Amino acid sequence: MDVAVLNRRFVGAQEKVAFRSAFAWEEWLCRPDIAPAKELLLVRATIDPGGAHGFHTHPTREEIIYVLSGRAEQWVGAQRRELCAGDMALIPRGEVHGTYNVGAEPLTFLAMLSPAHAEGPATVDVASEEPWCSLRAPGSSPPQSHPVCP
Amino acid sequence: MDVAVLNRRFVGAQEKVAFRSAFAWEEWLCRPDIAPAKELLLVRATIDPGGAHGFHTHPTREEIIYVLSGRAEQWVGAQRRELCAGDMALIPRGEVHGTYNVGAEPLTFLAMLSPAHAEGPATVDVASEEPWCSLRAPGSSPPQSHPVCP
Repeated sequence: MDVAVLNRRFVGAQEKVAFRSAFAWEEWLCRPDIAPAKELLLVRATIDPGGAHGFHTHPTREEIIYVLSGRAEQWVGAQRRELCAGDMALIPRGEVHGTYNVGAEPLTFLAMLSPAHAEGPATVDVASEEPWCSLRAPGSSPPQSHPVCP
Repeated sequence: MDVAVLNRRFVGAQEKVAFRSAFAWEEWLCRPDIAPAKELLLVRATIDPGGAHGFHTHPTREEIIYVLSGRAEQWVGAQRRELCAGDMALIPRGEVHGTYNVGAEPLTFLAMLSPAHAEGPATVDVASEEPWCSLRAPGSSPPQSHPVCP
């Protein structure tokens, strides 16, 4: 491992790795090419209003999604809840989940995953498969009314 | 495990476990008595101005500290940096670290730790031991000038 990475303990605007992915603006703060993590990955993701990261799984990692700002319609399995700033979802390893920005503002959240190192695909898309494609498709209307975040 | 805990996927104001500890207001969002976590613990901590969580270790877990608001003088080993909102520190398992609120406002941060389950003491206080007690004592002045967070 690169010595600078091995000795890195702090990650901010200078050290993060940021790019636009298919569904979000992703800012990676902790992964093995940034810092010497063995257990923890951390990414800050921003999804535009109306956007979504449709149903998918992480076959090798447990995940927490923690909302920093905006409103998320969050699914974990067949459970659904609107998350506001300060709320979180726990996604056990391999469980199907999806995140929809149902607010008027950008939705920004932290995704933390563990462990840091794992064999096999990191993400498997199941958005086109039943029952998920019938539950909620990207761009479709929410299945029920939403309370508004404070 | 309690069935409600086993099935819980969302944690917000209703489900969190909050209390005042010796150094912070702690709001636990993810731990095994709240949700069925195997890998991840998550707590939101708020330290008053002038307060600190002095030098300590977690012998069994890796940790990330992510600042939500306020200014942290963060130490990891002998490395020191001021962290502002959006910055993080990685603390490898067993490494000495400490967090000082050097701002005029409350300091609120997320601490994520992994794994969720581990034998032995979760935290070991080393604040009174050398070299840590000479580096920075709670209530002492910062060792150098601090840039101000935006």
